[in-house]
Amino acid sequence: MAATTRRFRAVRWDGGRLAVLDQSLLPARESWLELDGADATAAAIRRLAVRGAPLIGVVAAYGLALEVTREPSLQALERGAAVLRDARPTAVNLSRAVDRAAAAGRSAGDELAEAVRAEAEAIHAEEDAASAAIAAAGADLLGRARWLMTICNTGALAAGGDGTALAIALELHRRNGDVTVLACETRPLLQGARLTTWELRRHGVPGELIADSAAAGLLRRGEADAVIVGCDRVAANGDTANKVGTYSLALAANAAGVPFVVAGPTSSIDPGTPHGDAIAIEERDPHEVRTAGGALLSPPGFPARNPAFDVTPAELVTALVTERGIAAPPGQETIAELLA
Amino acid sequence: MAATTRRFRAVRWDGGRLAVLDQSLLPARESWLELDGADATAAAIRRLAVRGAPLIGVVAAYGLALEVTREPSLQALERGAAVLRDARPTAVNLSRAVDRAAAAGRSAGDELAEAVRAEAEAIHAEEDAASAAIAAAGADLLGRARWLMTICNTGALAAGGDGTALAIALELHRRNGDVTVLACETRPLLQGARLTTWELRRHGVPGELIADSAAAGLLRRGEADAVIVGCDRVAANGDTANKVGTYSLALAANAAGVPFVVAGPTSSIDPGTPHGDAIAIEERDPHEVRTAGGALLSPPGFPARNPAFDVTPAELVTALVTERGIAAPPGQETIAELLA
Repeated sequence: MAATTRRFRAVRWDGGRLAVLDQSLLPARESWLELDGADATAAAIRRLAVRGAPLIGVVAAYGLALEVTREPSLQALERGAAVLRDARPTAVNLSRAVDRAAAAGRSAGDELAEAVRAEAEAIHAEEDAASAAIAAAGADLLGRARWLMTICNTGALAAGGDGTALAIALELHRRNGDVTVLACETRPLLQGARLTTWELRRHGVPGELIADSAAAGLLRRGEADAVIVGCDRVAANGDTANKVGTYSLALAANAAGVPFVVAGPTSSIDPGTPHGDAIAIEERDPHEVRTAGGALLSPPGFPARNPAFDVTPAELVTALVTERGIAAPPGQETIAELLA
Repeated sequence: MAATTRRFRAVRWDGGRLAVLDQSLLPARESWLELDGADATAAAIRRLAVRGAPLIGVVAAYGLALEVTREPSLQALERGAAVLRDARPTAVNLSRAVDRAAAAGRSAGDELAEAVRAEAEAIHAEEDAASAAIAAAGADLLGRARWLMTICNTGALAAGGDGTALAIALELHRRNGDVTVLACETRPLLQGARLTTWELRRHGVPGELIADSAAAGLLRRGEADAVIVGCDRVAANGDTANKVGTYSLALAANAAGVPFVVAGPTSSIDPGTPHGDAIAIEERDPHEVRTAGGALLSPPGFPARNPAFDVTPAELVTALVTERGIAAPPGQETIAELLA
C-alpha cells in the first residue's frame, strides 16, 4: 500500500534569502543557518555544515547570487566565485555550479544579479529533477524490494531534491508503503548513523541502523532485498568509487545473489577515467579513525589508515541508475549510451 | 631479523584468588577485578570485562572452583555451573570448560573443591599450551607474511596464553621482526580499536588501526599478505562463526587472492554442529550500535540490529590452524582427522 513521506529539504530559498540546515549539529539539534553571501556560504561548506556534492553546488550558486545582489559588480562576482570555488577543492559539483552561475553573470550586463540568481535556480531545479528521475528509475527497477541496505547519506541532506540512492528508497516507500532501510553507520564519519537515521525519521520512513561490519552477514542470511549506494565517481568502464565500505557491500550482495545498485547523476560519470584503478583514493586524517562522535576509542596517537573511498569493480554492479536511465550492467558500452 | 615481544597476561590465579583485567575499561585504564565466585564471574563475562572464547572458559572454570571452595556442595556446584554456562550463548569453550570442571567435581566426593580447582588449572594449562602450538603452526604456515590483517581481539586479552590469531602475528614478529598488524576496529564494541591496539603496544609489535569498512578496499589494493582471525565456533564442515565482520573479510581476502586463516583451539570445534547455519547468532543490545566509546552517534532510540557474530562458509577459509595441526582447507574430513 502506498505511503506518504514527509517532504524535507536541507536548503531553503525564497528568491532573496538563503538558509541551510547546519548538518554539523545533527542528529542532536536542528538548527538553520542564514547565509548572506559568498563568505558565509563558503564558511558553511568548509566546516561541513552543508555537505553532499550536489547540495554544495546548489548552495554555492545561491551564495554567489546573494553576493552580487548586495554588490552587483563583475569584481564582486569574480571574488565571490573564487572564494566559493576554494571552499572544498575536491568536490567537482562545487566548481561546476559556481562556474556556471558566474558565467551567466558575466554575460548579463546590467542584469548581473538577476542572471546569477536565475542560473542558481536553474541548477537547483535541475538537481531536483535529477533526484526525481533517479528515484523513479530505481524504484521501477527494484519493484517490490522491501528491505534496502545502504551506506553513507545519499538523501535530501546531500542534494537539492530527495537525493540519489536514498531517494530510491523513499520512492519505493511512497509506492509500496512497506520499505525499511538498513542504514550502515558508515565509519569513520558516521554519515549513516548521524544523518541517514535522522533523515529517515524526518521523512517518516522506517529504518534500522547497523554496524558496517554486520552488513555482509545480514545479506548472507537473506535480510536485505537489495543494496543501493551513491557514487563519487564512475569510470568509463563502470568501476565505481564511493564511500569506503561500498566495495565490501558489493562483494556480500553478489555472494548473496542480491542486486547491488549504484545511483547517481550522469555528472558523476567521468569518461576520462578509463577504470577504477585510475581513481586516486583520498586518504584522510587518521584521527577520524581513532575517534567517534568526539570520543577517543584507541590509545592516543596509535597509527591509523583512513582511505575515504574504495573502488567497486563494474562486474559487481547490477545496475547504474542515473537521471538519464539505467546501465545494467554498467560497462563501456552501456555507459557510453547513457552519455550520448 | 627476530624481535622480542613483551609477555602479557589478562588473568591472574594464585591457587586461591582470581583476578582479571577489566577489559571494558581499556585502553584508558588498566584495572584488575577480583572475582570471588560464580555470580561475580558470570557478571564479568556478561558485561565483557572478560572476553575471548578461550579466556572466558578458563575464567569460568576458576569461578566455579571459587564457588565450591566457599560452599563445597553438589547443589552449589550445579547452580554455579548453570549461572556460568548461561553467561554467553555462542562460545562453545564456555560451556565445555564449565561442564568439564563440574564433572570433575561431581565425581570427587569430599574433595569436590580441590577437584574443580585442579580441573580449572588443567584447562588453563591446556589453553596456554594450545596458544603456543597455534602460534607456531600458524607462523610456519604464513612464513614471511609481513602485513597481517585481523579483527576483534584474539591475543593475550582473549586467552590464557598469547591467544590465537594474534598469537600467530606475535610469533611471526618474534621470528622475522618486520610484522605490522592491520587491526580492524571491530564495531560496535571496538575490541580492535580498544584492545588489539593496546595489546600490540604492550607487546611492542607495530600496528595500524583501520575502520572495518576499509578492510576490503585495502585487501583489493594488495596491502595485506594474509588475514588471520579467531573463531567462536567451528562446525563439523568447517563453517566458522566469529566476530561480526569476519565473513566480510573472508569475501574480500578471497577476491584478492590473499590467504584467509582461522585460528583456534580444537575446543572451538563443535562436531555436534553440522554446518554454520545451525549456529545460533547472538543478537546484542541495539544501544551498542547507537553509541561508540560512550558517545551517542544516532538519534535516541533509533532501531538498530546488532548481531554479535557472523558465519564464514568453509569454502572461504584457506586453513584452520589449531593446537593439533592444520586443516587446509577445513572440511568434514580434515576436521574429523584433527579431532581423531
